[in-house]
Amino acid sequence: MVNKIFTGLVAAGIPLSIAGKFLHWDKGLMFVIYCLTIIALSSFMGRATESLAIISGPRIGGLLNATFGNAVELIISIFSLQAGLVGVVLASLTGSVLGNLLLVGGLSFFIGGLKHKRQSFNVYDARHNSALLIFAVVVAFVIPEVFSMSMTKAQTLHLSVGISIILIVLYLAALLFKLVTHRGAYNVPGDTAGHEEETPEWSKAKAITVLALSTLAVAFVSEALVHTFNHIGETLGWTELFIGVIIVAIVGNAAEHASAIIMAYKNKMGVAVEIAVGSTLQVAMFVAPLLVLVSLFLPHSMPLVFSVPELVAMIAAVFLTISISNDGDSNWFEGATLLAAYFIMAIGFYLL
Amino acid sequence: MVNKIFTGLVAAGIPLSIAGKFLHWDKGLMFVIYCLTIIALSSFMGRATESLAIISGPRIGGLLNATFGNAVELIISIFSLQAGLVGVVLASLTGSVLGNLLLVGGLSFFIGGLKHKRQSFNVYDARHNSALLIFAVVVAFVIPEVFSMSMTKAQTLHLSVGISIILIVLYLAALLFKLVTHRGAYNVPGDTAGHEEETPEWSKAKAITVLALSTLAVAFVSEALVHTFNHIGETLGWTELFIGVIIVAIVGNAAEHASAIIMAYKNKMGVAVEIAVGSTLQVAMFVAPLLVLVSLFLPHSMPLVFSVPELVAMIAAVFLTISISNDGDSNWFEGATLLAAYFIMAIGFYLL
Amino acid sequence: MVNKIFTGLVAAGIPLSIAGKFLHWDKGLMFVIYCLTIIALSSFMGRATESLAIISGPRIGGLLNATFGNAVELIISIFSLQAGLVGVVLASLTGSVLGNLLLVGGLSFFIGGLKHKRQSFNVYDARHNSALLIFAVVVAFVIPEVFSMSMTKAQTLHLSVGISIILIVLYLAALLFKLVTHRGAYNVPGDTAGHEEETPEWSKAKAITVLALSTLAVAFVSEALVHTFNHIGETLGWTELFIGVIIVAIVGNAAEHASAIIMAYKNKMGVAVEIAVGSTLQVAMFVAPLLVLVSLFLPHSMPLVFSVPELVAMIAAVFLTISISNDGDSNWFEGATLLAAYFIMAIGFYLL
Repeated sequence: MVNKIFTGLVAAGIPLSIAGKFLHWDKGLMFVIYCLTIIALSSFMGRATESLAIISGPRIGGLLNATFGNAVELIISIFSLQAGLVGVVLASLTGSVLGNLLLVGGLSFFIGGLKHKRQSFNVYDARHNSALLIFAVVVAFVIPEVFSMSMTKAQTLHLSVGISIILIVLYLAALLFKLVTHRGAYNVPGDTAGHEEETPEWSKAKAITVLALSTLAVAFVSEALVHTFNHIGETLGWTELFIGVIIVAIVGNAAEHASAIIMAYKNKMGVAVEIAVGSTLQVAMFVAPLLVLVSLFLPHSMPLVFSVPELVAMIAAVFLTISISNDGDSNWFEGATLLAAYFIMAIGFYLL
Repeated sequence: MVNKIFTGLVAAGIPLSIAGKFLHWDKGLMFVIYCLTIIALSSFMGRATESLAIISGPRIGGLLNATFGNAVELIISIFSLQAGLVGVVLASLTGSVLGNLLLVGGLSFFIGGLKHKRQSFNVYDARHNSALLIFAVVVAFVIPEVFSMSMTKAQTLHLSVGISIILIVLYLAALLFKLVTHRGAYNVPGDTAGHEEETPEWSKAKAITVLALSTLAVAFVSEALVHTFNHIGETLGWTELFIGVIIVAIVGNAAEHASAIIMAYKNKMGVAVEIAVGSTLQVAMFVAPLLVLVSLFLPHSMPLVFSVPELVAMIAAVFLTISISNDGDSNWFEGATLLAAYFIMAIGFYLL
Repeated sequence: MVNKIFTGLVAAGIPLSIAGKFLHWDKGLMFVIYCLTIIALSSFMGRATESLAIISGPRIGGLLNATFGNAVELIISIFSLQAGLVGVVLASLTGSVLGNLLLVGGLSFFIGGLKHKRQSFNVYDARHNSALLIFAVVVAFVIPEVFSMSMTKAQTLHLSVGISIILIVLYLAALLFKLVTHRGAYNVPGDTAGHEEETPEWSKAKAITVLALSTLAVAFVSEALVHTFNHIGETLGWTELFIGVIIVAIVGNAAEHASAIIMAYKNKMGVAVEIAVGSTLQVAMFVAPLLVLVSLFLPHSMPLVFSVPELVAMIAAVFLTISISNDGDSNWFEGATLLAAYFIMAIGFYLL
């Protein structure tokens, strides 16, 4: 049923987006149309990636998921960078981290917990992810923030590039670890998350076609979306920060959000956590550093230096997520705690 | 025996407090009398609450403990707010957090550990509490601190009010979780903390009378105490910060301190930890936000913005407590570590 | 074989150091000679301490290791303090913490993990060490940093002295706990780390002679080394910070590094972790506070106040190490994560 809604949204959204863009419809209306269209398109991209992953087997599949999983966010960000909106890009990266950990994680735990008294997931994976969250946010994001305070712009950029390369290398090493050298080494008895036999929804040819077309469409709509930010901000009194942290992040990750919550409801908490935390790590260790490197070829280079509120919010979110998820057990109250933290931060960014 | 001392202190303290106040005795002497009287009265309030809790059954009882447990602190704080001493209130909230986690927790672990080689307590409760400590201190206290740096006073107050409401709602949700939806769901085999059959010390009528009278008396003495702070600070060279963080916090929590340590000595470490950490959470998630909301109706409103040393000390205390208590096992050395941290902070606040 | 190399290095290094110093050879060359000689000498000191520890039994042995383990670092630091290089001393203390946790810990996990799929070590020791890391770095180092921002120099020094005394007392209490009151209380079945029968390499007389002569030689070479820093910094464009954090720290700890990695390769991961983390705690809880106290008798007193980048790097390293080592299980990827964090910080200090 969800799929039908998304199909309808795409069928209506793409012509409306094209029409609205060239006929200069009201920017507030177009902002809504663009957002809904991107959400629907990203659900198609998710399904296509999923089919390809099943067809290609776990190793290549894991790699596909790990690289295409945040393709929408990457595309929006590159267009934003080209438009010189470095602040929006950093804000939307922050928003992805906060949204995945607190909103998606929180909704999964909360809604899953309303149906199931206690839910469990692989404690080894939780710890592996905890260490990487600390590495990415508390080491790799904090160091340039603090060190750049007594650095020139050039030094800050050198440091950012160095850290970005290290982040991507470690991200690839994590894939090697999970998919090759230690595949299945940390399984918990009875934990079958993702190990069921799966049949692809689409054939290889269809999946590739859908992926290519959706990506093109997302690129087109994203480019248009980015140019409505200014108007939306002025009309609704939203700051660039709030648009980036809350709105862009929700639009860019909505499809993933939906599937994580559905998995939690089905008591497949391992998959839900993998989506929420795995997606965060992908953003922090792959999308963010890749954007730093890509920005070197664009007019405005982007150092890996977040604003202090952004960084502090991410650190707080990481510590809260770790302290809640590290035992491999969840319930509705833990979900409520994560959601409460998200609301606190959303109010903060709204008022800032 | 402890009870007899407190009865004597109340019998002597109340007339002396009244006499001293109206006859304008030396403020240094009165400061000592007020402090001792409040400590003794709060022990009566504790016993009355305990009796009422046993009579009303675990659900209402838990609610009573969770709301009346820090009544003394709430009363002192409201009088301080009315006297415009916002800084003292924030400092005494900080002091409650530090005192409960490091001093009470430390003394419990240390004294209990001198008698028993290893003591254990429910590891699930410890983790539940850890997550809430992170939520309250690292999320809800840190966000307004950092965000308010680039906010107007009005925005800071809006953010404080929003966060306060979220804190209180989550505190009530935690009670719902513990007392209703998941009561007993996380019990550890052989863990009988607080599940023994208990007989109330006083009848319902007597308990309510004692609670009402003690509360009135505490209110009277607290109001008088608050007006000695200035004089004490000048005479002894103590800063407002030191009075708030160390002195008020010890006076306001002394009765609880005593019972936690007695429980630890009796090897009921679960109860001792529940008092130390539970009381901290009550202060952070209920008393502090309630004071923010109450202050809106007083001449001086209080934003949820601590001074940087206060906040950093609380964060450090939270991380240390979590790393020590998260395994559900304690010994004398872990107590010594918590006490050492308390001394370091006390020296810091004394010199500041 | 390693021992033979070190013997050769000492045999060549000491005469070359003496000759070079008095004949004023090129300072760049002398810097290299001094560093290699110190590394070789400290390996002799390590072997002598080890022999004495085995001869004296576990209690006195533990004490010997705990006090002589970082003798080289202590000696270099005292000479640096005497030369007024307070900044270099704080930097080299930082470097010891970062180097032991991230470089030694990382290399041990990585190289051990290349040979063994999963390695384990005592989870109780890991948690005990975690709590002390938080205590030392997040409490005892952070409090003076933050509080000193609104303190006079005299107050900062008072606070530093108070904290230093508390650190040393707690360090001695930790030895009492580990070697006397709770010796063996937290053993894990099958964990034999360090409990094998050992025969001393040297007799008591020989060990004492070697220890005394090596210490004298280290003192002589260290004093000479310190006076090459200025020249090296100017020639290579290295900052005082980079020399202290990276170079001095590696030279001062090289011998320990080697033995930790060898132990990890032999699958004695408990010993490797004990060297890496135990050595960090020794630096943070014994060497650093001792240097603060010693500095009171020298022309330049040293407060316990690191630079912000130093402190933040140490905090990040502590949280990463804890999140990786707290489960008592390691693999090559966890080592790679620690090493990646070290490289990020090294780049940061190089560019700063």
